[in-house]
Amino acid sequence: MASLKSRSAADRASETRSARKRTAILDAATTAFLEKGYVGTSMDEIATRAGVSKPTVYNHFADKEELFTEIVLRTIDDVGQPFYDSIGTLDDTDDVEAALGRLARKLGAILEEPLLLQLRRLVIGEVARFPQLGRTYFERGAGRTIDTLASEFARLSQAGRLELSDPRLAAEQFNWLVLSIPLNRAMFDPDVNFDGGELEAYAEEAVRVFLAAYGARRRRRSPSK
Amino acid sequence: MASLKSRSAADRASETRSARKRTAILDAATTAFLEKGYVGTSMDEIATRAGVSKPTVYNHFADKEELFTEIVLRTIDDVGQPFYDSIGTLDDTDDVEAALGRLARKLGAILEEPLLLQLRRLVIGEVARFPQLGRTYFERGAGRTIDTLASEFARLSQAGRLELSDPRLAAEQFNWLVLSIPLNRAMFDPDVNFDGGELEAYAEEAVRVFLAAYGARRRRRSPSK
Repeated sequence: MASLKSRSAADRASETRSARKRTAILDAATTAFLEKGYVGTSMDEIATRAGVSKPTVYNHFADKEELFTEIVLRTIDDVGQPFYDSIGTLDDTDDVEAALGRLARKLGAILEEPLLLQLRRLVIGEVARFPQLGRTYFERGAGRTIDTLASEFARLSQAGRLELSDPRLAAEQFNWLVLSIPLNRAMFDPDVNFDGGELEAYAEEAVRVFLAAYGARRRRRSPSK
Repeated sequence: MASLKSRSAADRASETRSARKRTAILDAATTAFLEKGYVGTSMDEIATRAGVSKPTVYNHFADKEELFTEIVLRTIDDVGQPFYDSIGTLDDTDDVEAALGRLARKLGAILEEPLLLQLRRLVIGEVARFPQLGRTYFERGAGRTIDTLASEFARLSQAGRLELSDPRLAAEQFNWLVLSIPLNRAMFDPDVNFDGGELEAYAEEAVRVFLAAYGARRRRRSPSK
């Protein structure tokens, strides 16, 4: 019993050490990829920067592509989480405009994360060489957002609170109405810096245009004379 | 007189040769950049591929950045020209919806050019290293489109055919309503292939949403009871 307990404590210590090394590798690799690009970065250099041996790197990640994918997806998921958490708020109110405004602001706020913008540029630049990474990035980022919005918009449409026949198209338009003006500027300007007010203004304008096209009209909400 | 004439013929022959070499260098460089990326391509390799000497390359282009910039801007200008040519059509009709539809389809059609998409990915991927190129690309591409649209929308607004207070914002929204759904998919998928119908459908839907937000309403067009 005592030996089992101490084995298990040793295991836990080893797991912690292993997790620490994994984090060190991910951090070192992120810095290296952003400085030198994907092709310019070697697993040797990542090991040196992380202060671990090269076999240790390979214990955690089968190859450079797996390591890069892990960095990219972890960042997308982290940055997107507050937006997904806020999706539920659409349920909580009859004021669709206010609820969409909150949602749009959460969505726009992902552009405040420089690491996301840097990795997005890097993935786009490497798409010809690593098409699978590009597709995975898109599915996990914009794709997931659009799927989520499409479900919500379908529900709001059934409830008579939006008027639309193609929830997926409406979701794509909403997503890019919020993001595309600042995002496309950011893709071409590494020094871009949004203050919160600017992104919020784009979010508000996006909701205004979206509701002009898809808002439920009063006459339909009260069909009886 | 005869000697002047023959000198001038020789000059012309030399200019033609020089122009042919310039084109050969641009074509060779385009292929090399797309295959090996910006950093992976050397002026030596471009000279070899173009079948000219390295000093000849430098006679035409001061350095790799100038050569790359020339390729990118030439492509943007070529691809964008049919759109700019069609801007005038907004004048020729009272049917704003039809005119905006034509304009949106011309704008969407730029995405049918694979070279533009490939260079756009390359520029985005290199923005951290070459911020000036990124800014130039944006100004000459989306920036020029948005400036042009903003002037047109201001004019249409003054004529009472659109209702808007911020022509620049409306221009940005129009541009990205047309382009962003297919363009963002294309950035992450090197094998993307739009058939004409798909881009036209996005263009039509963009105009529908845009006019819901900014179309002149009948009651305002005939204010008297």
